[in-house]
Amino acid sequence: MRALWLEEQQLRLREDLEIPEPPSGEVRVRVLRAGICNTDLELLRGYYPYAGIPGHEFVGVVDAGPSRLLGQRVVGEINAACSACAACRAERRTHCEKRTVLGIVGRNGAFAEYLLLPEENLHVVPEEVGTDAATFTEPLAAALEIQEQITIDANERVLVVGDGKLGQLIAQTLALTSCDLTVVARHPRKAKLLLRRGIRALQAVEPGSFDIAVECTGNPEGFTLAQRALRARGTLVMKSTYAGSLPVDVAAVVVNELTLVGSRCGPFVPALRLLATREVEVEPLIDARYALTDALAAFAHAQRRGVLKVLVDVADP
Amino acid sequence: MRALWLEEQQLRLREDLEIPEPPSGEVRVRVLRAGICNTDLELLRGYYPYAGIPGHEFVGVVDAGPSRLLGQRVVGEINAACSACAACRAERRTHCEKRTVLGIVGRNGAFAEYLLLPEENLHVVPEEVGTDAATFTEPLAAALEIQEQITIDANERVLVVGDGKLGQLIAQTLALTSCDLTVVARHPRKAKLLLRRGIRALQAVEPGSFDIAVECTGNPEGFTLAQRALRARGTLVMKSTYAGSLPVDVAAVVVNELTLVGSRCGPFVPALRLLATREVEVEPLIDARYALTDALAAFAHAQRRGVLKVLVDVADP
Repeated sequence: MRALWLEEQQLRLREDLEIPEPPSGEVRVRVLRAGICNTDLELLRGYYPYAGIPGHEFVGVVDAGPSRLLGQRVVGEINAACSACAACRAERRTHCEKRTVLGIVGRNGAFAEYLLLPEENLHVVPEEVGTDAATFTEPLAAALEIQEQITIDANERVLVVGDGKLGQLIAQTLALTSCDLTVVARHPRKAKLLLRRGIRALQAVEPGSFDIAVECTGNPEGFTLAQRALRARGTLVMKSTYAGSLPVDVAAVVVNELTLVGSRCGPFVPALRLLATREVEVEPLIDARYALTDALAAFAHAQRRGVLKVLVDVADP
Repeated sequence: MRALWLEEQQLRLREDLEIPEPPSGEVRVRVLRAGICNTDLELLRGYYPYAGIPGHEFVGVVDAGPSRLLGQRVVGEINAACSACAACRAERRTHCEKRTVLGIVGRNGAFAEYLLLPEENLHVVPEEVGTDAATFTEPLAAALEIQEQITIDANERVLVVGDGKLGQLIAQTLALTSCDLTVVARHPRKAKLLLRRGIRALQAVEPGSFDIAVECTGNPEGFTLAQRALRARGTLVMKSTYAGSLPVDVAAVVVNELTLVGSRCGPFVPALRLLATREVEVEPLIDARYALTDALAAFAHAQRRGVLKVLVDVADP
């Protein structure tokens, strides 16, 4: 089969890969669409030493698996758990100590004609959700993880630092709560996307004036801005993966008694529901689409400054 | 009056200071005993540009103030609040935006014959608590702040990283919960103090095996150890003030969805109660005592590696 291959921080297109055979408990998915995420770009920069097919945001059709799923359009949770380790037994399956992660850790990913995932990871896409929109299920679930981890009270002053593709999804999900939401948006085009949905977008904010700040720029300046924006005893949600260490002003964290919360993968069911009801709108975030044969160009496009979501069309539905 | 004076990272003894006159709402305290805290040593190293009398752990006798307090033996909360700012109005008075802090920010401290504090900051010391023991009220309250901020469930695996004077108090307070407590203690003498109270003290621990870790070493190695000791979704309580930035492995915080909680000053009432009931025992933590005239020698002693609490005897009760 055809797939994109990452090895030693180099991407290349391969045509020589075998169509994978699902082991017991796993399902084979014929990929329709896949999205490029910042984590893919970080992997390319060496954030984690992964060799294999990248890609973890996808929609596909089940072509080998149980009859209830055969032919169904699906999306999939990316962490494949062992069910036996301490984390799995404590119902922290996304933190399974022996997990593989689609396109990230020890499991070939979605920039390929076919992929494998455990049956339990798959969710059927409701008919009313288009294939483009459904490709956003995984990052939208990651955005919703914030609300799994912290309580956001009515009228709380919440700041999102970052107007990129994840920031846009986070802003849209937080706008559905009754919080007082602001996004730091430095790109006029991205600010406009937010304003169009009635979300306040500012270039700068007053220090010490927010109860909660969500950092999703992935750069130290964004982290510092988020930290300074918080009032004493505020909560900083860290939504970006960074390569390397970040110099943190720990004295300020202690003196101001801040809480920092690392946040990763989230729940697929409410994400699909928000896409079905169109309470979250993702199509305006699509900046470009490429065929799988042009996946290298797709990655080059996604790496350009200011670009939102780039999709790869692997097959027609 | 006589006092210790800190300026430009230099300490000197002064005899030429005026006995301070309490403004309205404040009380004058004749100091009996004061303790040297790590924050005092950090101030001396330039952690914060303070000029004035240092010291914030004290016991004294009220000699100018309301009749209900006159002649009473007292301890005092160190943050003097404005009652008007957003933090005060939100009942975060220890985070008052215009606060002065005894011996730390804009308010002369306890290594002096007299000090001033707002009346509301003072707590009468119960008769059954000795003056030496009561000097520990402030750091013991800081230890108890942890339990104000996070819930510690029965049998949760809690790690304290650090066997110094604050670590010892934190360990003793956590031992009163029904958690499964371990302390990383690298000094045999300090490990013995813990073991004597039935607290498990180890030189090293298994990574990924604790629900909660409390960092109170103030050094980057301690922070890294605490972070690695946590299971996914664990909580790291940061109890030390550090000078400068700390390089934090933020990717690990995000991927493991850790929660980091900065923790500072705590409640005096339960601290005094634990001293009165002797559920916490502080006298074994006293390593040396000096007269105020020998306060420079007291600081030199407190800076030696492995030393626990050094007290300064300012006056006899």
